[in-house]
Amino acid sequence: MLERVERLRSELGRRALAGLIVSRPANRRYLSGFTGSAGLLVVLPAKAYLCTDFRYLEQAAAEAPGWEIVKLERPWTKTLKRLLGGVKGPVGFEADYLTFARHAAMTGAVVGVEFTPTHGLVEELRAQKCADEIARLRRAIRVTDEGAAFLRSLLQPGRREKEVALELEFFLRRRGATGPSFPFIVASGPRSSLPHGEPTQRKLCPGDLVTVDFGIVLEGYCSDLTRTFVLGTPTPEQRFLYDLVLAAQEKALAVAGPGVPAAEVDAAARNVIAEAGYGDYFGHALGHGVGLEIHEEPHLSPTATGKLAPGMVVTVEPGVYLPGTGGVRTEDVILITETGREVLSQAPKHSFFL
Amino acid sequence: MLERVERLRSELGRRALAGLIVSRPANRRYLSGFTGSAGLLVVLPAKAYLCTDFRYLEQAAAEAPGWEIVKLERPWTKTLKRLLGGVKGPVGFEADYLTFARHAAMTGAVVGVEFTPTHGLVEELRAQKCADEIARLRRAIRVTDEGAAFLRSLLQPGRREKEVALELEFFLRRRGATGPSFPFIVASGPRSSLPHGEPTQRKLCPGDLVTVDFGIVLEGYCSDLTRTFVLGTPTPEQRFLYDLVLAAQEKALAVAGPGVPAAEVDAAARNVIAEAGYGDYFGHALGHGVGLEIHEEPHLSPTATGKLAPGMVVTVEPGVYLPGTGGVRTEDVILITETGREVLSQAPKHSFFL
Repeated sequence: MLERVERLRSELGRRALAGLIVSRPANRRYLSGFTGSAGLLVVLPAKAYLCTDFRYLEQAAAEAPGWEIVKLERPWTKTLKRLLGGVKGPVGFEADYLTFARHAAMTGAVVGVEFTPTHGLVEELRAQKCADEIARLRRAIRVTDEGAAFLRSLLQPGRREKEVALELEFFLRRRGATGPSFPFIVASGPRSSLPHGEPTQRKLCPGDLVTVDFGIVLEGYCSDLTRTFVLGTPTPEQRFLYDLVLAAQEKALAVAGPGVPAAEVDAAARNVIAEAGYGDYFGHALGHGVGLEIHEEPHLSPTATGKLAPGMVVTVEPGVYLPGTGGVRTEDVILITETGREVLSQAPKHSFFL
Repeated sequence: MLERVERLRSELGRRALAGLIVSRPANRRYLSGFTGSAGLLVVLPAKAYLCTDFRYLEQAAAEAPGWEIVKLERPWTKTLKRLLGGVKGPVGFEADYLTFARHAAMTGAVVGVEFTPTHGLVEELRAQKCADEIARLRRAIRVTDEGAAFLRSLLQPGRREKEVALELEFFLRRRGATGPSFPFIVASGPRSSLPHGEPTQRKLCPGDLVTVDFGIVLEGYCSDLTRTFVLGTPTPEQRFLYDLVLAAQEKALAVAGPGVPAAEVDAAARNVIAEAGYGDYFGHALGHGVGLEIHEEPHLSPTATGKLAPGMVVTVEPGVYLPGTGGVRTEDVILITETGREVLSQAPKHSFFL
């Protein structure tokens, strides 16, 4: 973890910041390893403080070696004032997380320190995963793949979308998932054309397209997987849509690699769908980073500006949604390597008839 | 819902505010009925706008009759500027929810409007529940009571704390719970002295004290229930602790009613425990409001300043925790009525031997 703090310090140096206050939970955990629900980090050039309340002091000491554990006083700004005592130069804070009230309390109590808003600073570091994070993501994805196999047995005519979502979650939780990484999507029949269809009481019918998008949190890390199935023999139109989405995904997978602009990967899939005449029916971005949070940097979208780099872990999830007819989406998680990409999800894609 | 907006408007009038911007999800839902995950309300003397993005426009119109549904532009401050065009006087915002960055964007884009931080304004209205809310809370509590009956069958020597938590949750979810209202606590044997013991792989043993604290979300409303059990015949010490906690709870229940200071209810329970010599082992507040959120106003604690009023729904949960020996906590939810209080939870308390 301390290596991560060093990377952050370089970043602070580049921005001429004398320190950073970190309160966003995923950033706090990323830098320190501390998993408690309350606390803040104060990162200075020669010090790394983890401040938390009395409930978490023991846990913080165990989880965050190398950090100086500080008990938060009341009000919390008193502790901050003490720790920032000798600091020369502007101190950053997370402007997209800190509330107006906390910022006002902080600037009111700690006079003589210039507080500077920062945006996405630690989030940017989190985009490139280290070996330990990749190992955790692999484990989360392995359990998710087991869930996909179980899911096939759940998809029977007469079963309700809500039951499918619930039983799939229970299966994954019994195998160690802490929880779902987002509310599961089960969208069947005409509802499969809703990209984010919440599961309903609708019963599955023979011939339905069924899109299931699900993921778990395991050891703090998120997984994300989508498969679309047909309950029975696909119609020629269902077969066509399925093959089209798969072809779009394969094109994007072939293009993804270190140094490739994120927008180019999105375009690779999008062009396949547009050339087939379905461009208007793929209304969302191609993918997003996954890690401690289910949606994080980098994003694969038409407006993305960055380039992919080794250690990035992203979803690749093209879809085509025809209102009234139905939709198909396929999603896998890939790791950008030094030389290309590795598809981490192993759930089968080519046998979608049930 | 519109009656709630009228109450809010009176409150705004008293504070000389010309309007309020509401973005905290529970407050948004409380005022408008809208359950989507994104959006903000703009409440003005003669207008009530619900602004949300394109994904939620249909849902918002269906869920929030009487509100004018507005599609959020990009950036969102553009819409805000338009809606606040003719407003004379300060407009409030939720200082404990709005981020620094959003506040900066808002004040930067909407010039000529004086924005004023507010604290807990809608939260205060939410403290006294209306008939519809009380009906929902009753339904959530009824399912939770069924869970308590099922829980008794789960508590067998050899079963792990984690399994108990998981199977209890599955039971409740199958009966309609949207999810847990907080991470369940299952603390057995020596671990029962941890007031907030997360479930572990520990196996239950004969003679254990087992404290289980759990609750669900149903129709948007939260429940909260704690029972402590003994696996077998209680020792005289276990029996004594159990009776002491029960006596403290009964004292608090007898005192609670409209017009009674919240701190007095806390003191009623606390004194019973202190007089028995265990004052140092009851380290938390006696209770908290429950509603759209699991912890809300009012709080029953030694430092609480308000008085109870009809329609308030609060937990009453004294506990005694002896490090090394074990702990006991009992928790029920009560409704403050015009004349006294009604205990809403029905799960049995007097048969705690398994």
